[in-house]
Amino acid sequence: MKAANFADRMLDACAAKGGPVCVGLDPRWEDLPARIRGGHGEDLEGRAAAVMEFNRAVIGIVAPLVPVVKPNIAFFEAMGAPGFRCYLDTVAAAKEKGLLVIGDVKRGDLGNTAEAYARAHYDLAGADALTLNPYLGLDSLEPFLRRCREDGRGCFILVKTSNPGSADLQDLEVGNLRVFEEVAVMVRGWAAAPGLVGARGWSSMGAVVGATHPAEAALLRRMLPTIPFLVPGYGAQGATAADCVPSFDAKGEGAVVNSSRGILLPWKKGPLAEKHGEARWEKAVEEATLEMREALRAALPKGK
Amino acid sequence: MKAANFADRMLDACAAKGGPVCVGLDPRWEDLPARIRGGHGEDLEGRAAAVMEFNRAVIGIVAPLVPVVKPNIAFFEAMGAPGFRCYLDTVAAAKEKGLLVIGDVKRGDLGNTAEAYARAHYDLAGADALTLNPYLGLDSLEPFLRRCREDGRGCFILVKTSNPGSADLQDLEVGNLRVFEEVAVMVRGWAAAPGLVGARGWSSMGAVVGATHPAEAALLRRMLPTIPFLVPGYGAQGATAADCVPSFDAKGEGAVVNSSRGILLPWKKGPLAEKHGEARWEKAVEEATLEMREALRAALPKGK
Repeated sequence: MKAANFADRMLDACAAKGGPVCVGLDPRWEDLPARIRGGHGEDLEGRAAAVMEFNRAVIGIVAPLVPVVKPNIAFFEAMGAPGFRCYLDTVAAAKEKGLLVIGDVKRGDLGNTAEAYARAHYDLAGADALTLNPYLGLDSLEPFLRRCREDGRGCFILVKTSNPGSADLQDLEVGNLRVFEEVAVMVRGWAAAPGLVGARGWSSMGAVVGATHPAEAALLRRMLPTIPFLVPGYGAQGATAADCVPSFDAKGEGAVVNSSRGILLPWKKGPLAEKHGEARWEKAVEEATLEMREALRAALPKGK
Repeated sequence: MKAANFADRMLDACAAKGGPVCVGLDPRWEDLPARIRGGHGEDLEGRAAAVMEFNRAVIGIVAPLVPVVKPNIAFFEAMGAPGFRCYLDTVAAAKEKGLLVIGDVKRGDLGNTAEAYARAHYDLAGADALTLNPYLGLDSLEPFLRRCREDGRGCFILVKTSNPGSADLQDLEVGNLRVFEEVAVMVRGWAAAPGLVGARGWSSMGAVVGATHPAEAALLRRMLPTIPFLVPGYGAQGATAADCVPSFDAKGEGAVVNSSRGILLPWKKGPLAEKHGEARWEKAVEEATLEMREALRAALPKGK
């Protein structure tokens, strides 16, 4: 049986969980609660085991509350081979809890190399969707798109990223458009290809659109009315719930908003740290998740 | 003691080995000699062990003949956690034999994520240089550049890649220039920053310039006279030694030319397969390396 279209799965999951929150799993061993760090060694094996304990706890807390998690593989690669294993185990643990998993890998390479990455991150790691870099063009995306068409996977193409340096290349003016708008035009074409569009009209090819650029997000939402957006930049990077609204459609659908440190580490500083502290870090993570879900609910137009 | 500048190390190594050949380590288990595959299991552990045996043999053969190897991590990630370990072991094995290692990882991410990748691939894996994607802009490169300035590392920014799809984004016209030319202008500025330029005037920030686009390579060499080029596309992708010449300066310096399948798998088809076959695959690898070195020597202008 053919797997359901990724966009359909994402929209269903957002509805089922009552909000479009994506929890970014960017774990740095140095940031973990001392109680967890103390239970393991300080070599790479020990660090990866501590991170895994933390990730399992976070996944258990957020699984009833959010549709999606997004582990960023950089933080796992920084723990060597045990870290790579921890990434794979984290994806598996999230899927076991019924969460969709966006593997934030930002890969982009050509031909048979792209095929190897697709095999690694869809077939083997089992991520439902991946973030991908468009600099190498459509042929570099094809092995990923085949899995979107045939195996219910999704992808989010970097269009306008949340960092200040995104201006360097992405904002260059190409005739009447900027580079990121040209990429959006290409994504619009690629995303409409047979096999990618789901029952609800959305494509399984999505776009990464930083919440730190709300004007550009509004423009991109008009250009790409049926492309799911993955929206980073909320919280620690400075964007508010209001800044995220332009990434959604008029029904308040079609995007997920990521927060990483804001949900993983609210017990480090701020009101939830004062309320719970490190001793009750799990409670702080839960409340931060609920607060973000509520903030987005309040800001977004009501569905149907 | 501060490590020597990467560009100096690369130019010295090319001179010492008598040619600018870079051996691309893109190992697919399916392609290995049956004798090696048969000595290991077929699960991921076994596949990674077989690939490691092959890589060690190839490294032993090419170490006296070439300055640089370039493992592409995608092929290792496709073997899961044992594959990631195999990547680390391959980098270490090449360095033990005195080879420079370019980790072909094509990473590109922002802020603290870029820092995690730099830590993973320079500090932990130990690669001398990395390939990096420019789509996220200068701030995404900064953690890598810090190691170039302080720790003798190098990087090669994707400017004009060797695949046909590189035209999609890289060839878009931005006013008077194409996107890849704009990237080149940026790289030129970034590469001249204090701490990056070595004793011979070359920067430790390089560029990836596909040999499949010789006209663009000639233009880029004029635009970037002191930026080392990593030149993919030779052999299996169709470029000849003559196509690589424009990537070098008038003295025949400043670039390394990569071949992957052409050097790893000459015993599969073609004259060296007829001569040696799989039984003497090591001999075929050695002769393919020598042939490539000789072809580049014959095509390049003579040094000084």
